[in-house]
Amino acid sequence: MTEVRTILLEKSVFSDNDRQADLLRARLSEKGTTLINVMSSPGAGKTTTLISVVNELKKTLRVGVMEADIDSDVDAVKVAERTGVKSVQLHTGGMCHLDASMTEQGLTEIGYDDLDLVFLENVGNLVCPAEYDTGAHLNMTILSVPEGDDKPLKYPLIYESCDLVVINKIDVSGYFSFDLEKCRKNIAYRNPSATVLPISAKTGQNVQAVVEYIRSFVQSNKEPRI
Amino acid sequence: MTEVRTILLEKSVFSDNDRQADLLRARLSEKGTTLINVMSSPGAGKTTTLISVVNELKKTLRVGVMEADIDSDVDAVKVAERTGVKSVQLHTGGMCHLDASMTEQGLTEIGYDDLDLVFLENVGNLVCPAEYDTGAHLNMTILSVPEGDDKPLKYPLIYESCDLVVINKIDVSGYFSFDLEKCRKNIAYRNPSATVLPISAKTGQNVQAVVEYIRSFVQSNKEPRI
Repeated sequence: MTEVRTILLEKSVFSDNDRQADLLRARLSEKGTTLINVMSSPGAGKTTTLISVVNELKKTLRVGVMEADIDSDVDAVKVAERTGVKSVQLHTGGMCHLDASMTEQGLTEIGYDDLDLVFLENVGNLVCPAEYDTGAHLNMTILSVPEGDDKPLKYPLIYESCDLVVINKIDVSGYFSFDLEKCRKNIAYRNPSATVLPISAKTGQNVQAVVEYIRSFVQSNKEPRI
Repeated sequence: MTEVRTILLEKSVFSDNDRQADLLRARLSEKGTTLINVMSSPGAGKTTTLISVVNELKKTLRVGVMEADIDSDVDAVKVAERTGVKSVQLHTGGMCHLDASMTEQGLTEIGYDDLDLVFLENVGNLVCPAEYDTGAHLNMTILSVPEGDDKPLKYPLIYESCDLVVINKIDVSGYFSFDLEKCRKNIAYRNPSATVLPISAKTGQNVQAVVEYIRSFVQSNKEPRI
């Protein structure tokens, strides 16, 4: 079995998380590293989606993955085994989110100087992770078909604070009463400017659209700001 | 469209939630009312399961349902329309859980003097709700097949603190790599004494087992303690 490092994160000592997040984001930008924060409810397919997109992205980019969980290291091991990219497991010590300082501890462990792109897989939760800016350049929320098309109505902040919504498990749409158009409307109600990409991480359907979206985002993030 | 009352819960002023929860539980027991706290991740099927079991339980018991969410009243309206039992919507004001004091505010609104059984549908979340004793007599966690059999490894406390685990959406097992025996082992690893009942709330498969479990629990809860 693959061994991955597991880091127990320490509680942040900073009271101003937004300021910390801005500083971290600027530091990453200086180094040319893009950080993407991936959020969803438990079991929506964060890890499977990451494995699927990382296996494409690694062809042209140097990628790392940080897996945050309350306990266990199943995700980091899976990512390491199935993609071969740098991967660390972060334990939150019972907490349901990561803030900028915790994210930075993970980044220090993974070592981002030689990485173009780092994914942070946040704790599976639609409430707390949305309340803390991690310092990421892009927030991506995954909503899976079995959860239902009404989730954006119930969990406002996570949809309001994200740039990209991936609707996963569309291969099983036929077995659930999930209305894709209604779901798009519910997302737009919370966040009219979010990009919405329906995929199946399991079958690979439309995963390329996510890969291209991220590749182009990383590219634009490397370009000097005017 | 059915109108249901929506209550915006106030933050608890009590520092000792465990004491508040014990007091609430004792008060409910005196009145002969059983409170069941239902927890799961978003979209695992809490509302569908409740509708399905309430429609059976209401034949012999006086039942009420409190639906807690951060926003929207879709669940309380659905429960009221499809079961006809007393139902209120609780808004947590952004918080990811309910404590005993918040639960009591909901119970005051629903009026439990004439109810044998009240369900509290907690916020969809596998972390925060497990950290607060609501005053319930029974904690029920729903895990749905599409989420995966590894969830008990990742979210220890919610499995450690529950009495009954309902594994929902077993009708779609064929479309997901979900191993029921592995899932049972993972639940037992966290909580060897939890009862595990696999069901499909949508097709009705094995829902009767949950109905009988709850009916017998309510009965035993009404019997005077020796």
